[in-house]
Amino acid sequence: MNVKVGISNRHVHLTYEDYKILFGDIPLTKRNDLTQPNTYACNETVTIKGEKRELSNVRVLGPCRTYTQVEVSKTDAYYLGVNPPVRNSGKLDDAYEITIIGPIGEITKKACIIATRHIHVDKNIRREHNLEGIEKVSVKISGEKSGIIENVFLKESDEAYFELHLDTDDGNAFLLNNGDEVEIII
Amino acid sequence: MNVKVGISNRHVHLTYEDYKILFGDIPLTKRNDLTQPNTYACNETVTIKGEKRELSNVRVLGPCRTYTQVEVSKTDAYYLGVNPPVRNSGKLDDAYEITIIGPIGEITKKACIIATRHIHVDKNIRREHNLEGIEKVSVKISGEKSGIIENVFLKESDEAYFELHLDTDDGNAFLLNNGDEVEIII
Repeated sequence: MNVKVGISNRHVHLTYEDYKILFGDIPLTKRNDLTQPNTYACNETVTIKGEKRELSNVRVLGPCRTYTQVEVSKTDAYYLGVNPPVRNSGKLDDAYEITIIGPIGEITKKACIIATRHIHVDKNIRREHNLEGIEKVSVKISGEKSGIIENVFLKESDEAYFELHLDTDDGNAFLLNNGDEVEIII
Repeated sequence: MNVKVGISNRHVHLTYEDYKILFGDIPLTKRNDLTQPNTYACNETVTIKGEKRELSNVRVLGPCRTYTQVEVSKTDAYYLGVNPPVRNSGKLDDAYEITIIGPIGEITKKACIIATRHIHVDKNIRREHNLEGIEKVSVKISGEKSGIIENVFLKESDEAYFELHLDTDDGNAFLLNNGDEVEIII
């Protein structure tokens, strides 16, 4: 079966507490909706700073979460001078320390990961696509730089848009664009 | 069978004529040998400029060749604002136009490609590893971001060091480092 691709550029999730340190006691503002229900890109951006360099204009995603997390690619990691582990969202026990700089403040915490390749599903999607009881799959990608990516986790939420999320390294290695269709191999 | 990985960062090959336009009538100077016989990284670097941005400190590789070629990753291509095709080295008929800037001059030509994934072989290596008559293979990569890359061409020269060359997008997508071993699948 096929699934659409969504490529995630580097981005930041913030707790409301951390958001207030970076931006003050003003509301987070929506720029545009993302494909997953009730998620959006904000007008707000931050600078992220590693041991070697920093990257500016890094998008904050909303709404605020119960954890602050910085998701980068391995290419970004080399540039910044950080060595983040590959982790599912929210698994920050051994995340890499990084500094997040906003217009009025900054925070430094173990928040930086490379996100695990994942497909968003909910119970209905699992039922429709015979994905019940499955933890991870592989995905076949065609084209000039074709291949198979493994260790793609099914990430379940109450309500999901069926989509494969890859970072820019995976997307660019396979010359993928947002909305391309690729094949799930169970 | 296994093969060692070599990750190629963006780089430039120059004809002697183009080299003289960029650097003048002085010798190209070796910084360090590369793994392939009679190839080396030079002390000389250039700036490459696309339609949106430029990248500086791009290494010139020696010796000079019969064609001028700029090899970038898709990530670089987005940054620069160029749209190079995936091509074997020297196949520049529809390469993307790019400007190469040296200390004393600049050139603009159709020279920019994304290099095809390739393994360097010679006749002896083909014989030793049962690769005779084979044009391309796949490669299996283990680790946390594991998978298979396809369309890996066997690039034959008179004398070669047996090595898989990948660009930084492929290397970073699969968390590979120089010298890692991966498995060839025929």
